[in-house]
Amino acid sequence: MTPALTDPAALAEKLIACPSVTPATGAVFDCLEAMLRPLGFTVERFVDGDEAEGGPVENLLALRRSGDGPHFAFAGHLDVVPPGEGWTSDAFLPERRGELLYGRGAVDMKGAIAAFVAAVARTPDAGGTISLLITGDEEGDAVHGTRALMRHMAARAVVPELCLVGEPTSVQRLGDTIKIGRRGSVNMWITVPGVQGHVAYPHLADNPIPRLIRVLSAIEAIELDGGTDWFQPSNIEITDLHVGNPATNVIPARAAARLSIRFNDLHRGEALVSRIAALVEAEGGTLQAKISGEAFLTPPGALSTLVSDAITAETGLVPELSTSGGTSDARFLSALCPVVEFGLLNATMHKLDEAVALPDLEGLTRIYMRVLAAALSPAAAG
Amino acid sequence: MTPALTDPAALAEKLIACPSVTPATGAVFDCLEAMLRPLGFTVERFVDGDEAEGGPVENLLALRRSGDGPHFAFAGHLDVVPPGEGWTSDAFLPERRGELLYGRGAVDMKGAIAAFVAAVARTPDAGGTISLLITGDEEGDAVHGTRALMRHMAARAVVPELCLVGEPTSVQRLGDTIKIGRRGSVNMWITVPGVQGHVAYPHLADNPIPRLIRVLSAIEAIELDGGTDWFQPSNIEITDLHVGNPATNVIPARAAARLSIRFNDLHRGEALVSRIAALVEAEGGTLQAKISGEAFLTPPGALSTLVSDAITAETGLVPELSTSGGTSDARFLSALCPVVEFGLLNATMHKLDEAVALPDLEGLTRIYMRVLAAALSPAAAG
Ligand SMILES: [Zn+2]
Ligand SMILES: [Zn+2]
Repeated sequence: MTPALTDPAALAEKLIACPSVTPATGAVFDCLEAMLRPLGFTVERFVDGDEAEGGPVENLLALRRSGDGPHFAFAGHLDVVPPGEGWTSDAFLPERRGELLYGRGAVDMKGAIAAFVAAVARTPDAGGTISLLITGDEEGDAVHGTRALMRHMAARAVVPELCLVGEPTSVQRLGDTIKIGRRGSVNMWITVPGVQGHVAYPHLADNPIPRLIRVLSAIEAIELDGGTDWFQPSNIEITDLHVGNPATNVIPARAAARLSIRFNDLHRGEALVSRIAALVEAEGGTLQAKISGEAFLTPPGALSTLVSDAITAETGLVPELSTSGGTSDARFLSALCPVVEFGLLNATMHKLDEAVALPDLEGLTRIYMRVLAAALSPAAAG
Repeated sequence: MTPALTDPAALAEKLIACPSVTPATGAVFDCLEAMLRPLGFTVERFVDGDEAEGGPVENLLALRRSGDGPHFAFAGHLDVVPPGEGWTSDAFLPERRGELLYGRGAVDMKGAIAAFVAAVARTPDAGGTISLLITGDEEGDAVHGTRALMRHMAARAVVPELCLVGEPTSVQRLGDTIKIGRRGSVNMWITVPGVQGHVAYPHLADNPIPRLIRVLSAIEAIELDGGTDWFQPSNIEITDLHVGNPATNVIPARAAARLSIRFNDLHRGEALVSRIAALVEAEGGTLQAKISGEAFLTPPGALSTLVSDAITAETGLVPELSTSGGTSDARFLSALCPVVEFGLLNATMHKLDEAVALPDLEGLTRIYMRVLAAALSPAAAG
């Protein structure tokens, strides 16, 4: 075993040093592949999508089989959000200052991928199958990323039984939060047309604003649900209104609004779109919608207990099982098998001077080792 | 009598040739004064307002007294709206092409002021008092125009008993429409503040849009009145909505809307502002308002009959008594005495290639002569 492969900080530095603003391809995947091959993984890589479609995107499937035991998957992404202006040190030149390792992707989520590798490197004799499902398109549209990877896996009959996504779920201290689900998300754009005219002659015009207001009042009156055991109530926010009429004496020709709905697993995006579209069309308007992701839930059970126990053994904390926050690729992977998300602190994700505490990288590696050990023992599968 | 003073086309050309984009002072008033003095008028001119206040504005009060008969006033404005780009000939070089005289102010309302002068010039032996109340600030904010002129008149105890404003009220044919009133107008700007936040954490934010929608729904539910014998129903139009939030996942900090209310003589601007402000403040919002003018009505009676009869005698038409359209200085003058508005065709007012038909200038002069004759006969006053 190359000693460096058991050192998550050294591995994270190598990954951070490969710039990989979403969508990612190439060098950062070469770097990860070079870590995985010495550990006995077979590595398959492919590129999906062209520039016009938000690509090209690289995806990587790494597999290490040892006997007939269960199949445990680590999932994550090597792409990062753009660094932005104003970093103290170069975002793509990893730098340790005191206890912290700085660099874009330190917590979201090259640090966690380094911990995946280090945990496997410290578990040379694991039975069963370990896989890494790594995409270069999680921070972007996610069209050519995990979904393409899942098609690739399906064609090879690769089906994990348990999956851990390494997103930074911890809030105050490493281990305080696991995500067992995420709400779904859909944005909608409402346009109500009218007929322009002069306010002194309203009978010659058709003001679209009162009709838009009736639509929005009806939407505001909707109570989607009262929440579930694991989800807060689904929520509709009207996030923008737009007419753009500078003239005080003119009735405008068009009024528009935008909604954002975060919904729990009692709803499906398509059904919400249909419901809102009916209200909009009743007032002569049109609706455009973009479903960013459906809700998913891995109900508390074997997998969450396994991860929670590993965290408690390592840190003494009993993690909260959360479903809050935005979407992640777990919404896709949950179609395959039970999925939970657990990783580093999210305080600096997507921010300037993103950084991970070195003790957290070591702690996360140890937790992932415990997860692997428990997941690959014959009793854990299914 | 200088022959030219009886020729409204020649007079209109002289006035048009003095550029007088609002607010107006100087040459155009010199030109009018030079027409009035030979007709026996005393002429008082004064300038009101400085540049910071939308001025300077010139105003002119011309009086010709002859015995103790009634006092009849012609009112109007010498300022014009900017010509804009694209005229066939220079907007301030009057040009006759066929039957039409082109130039900015041809119908609104240097042509009518020329007809005032020509009508008086053809009525040398009128008894009673004739006045011309002429401002240089009708097309602008009207702060330093007719209202200042009325203060000037009040200080001299000059009080007309009947007043005709020469605005272009005719629609299809000269004489088809008299205005006996105008609706009032008020614009309002509503702002509802909130607390910005992320749509995934609505409990940490306060979305101002639902509150704005409640305000606007309440406003839409208002029926101000059902109209009167002389006015159509007062009308509220919401003319703009604005949030300006480009981010689909952000709850905005502020939502705004704009209203325009055109109201009849059952309402006062201040009361309408108070009523809407109460609805806005109930949802934590603020209101700004600008009252452009109050409604006025000169109920059909001696003055409208007098003008209508003059029109019918000259043209054979029975004019409609209208209260439609925007505001005019008649809203101020109506505080003094009965006021009606009657003038040229408004088809080209405020437009490129503004033009008056030469036969209409002659026809208007003859109608004004008949009005003068009837108004100054002893039976007409009061
Ligand atoms: Zn991430
Ligand atoms: Zn005018």
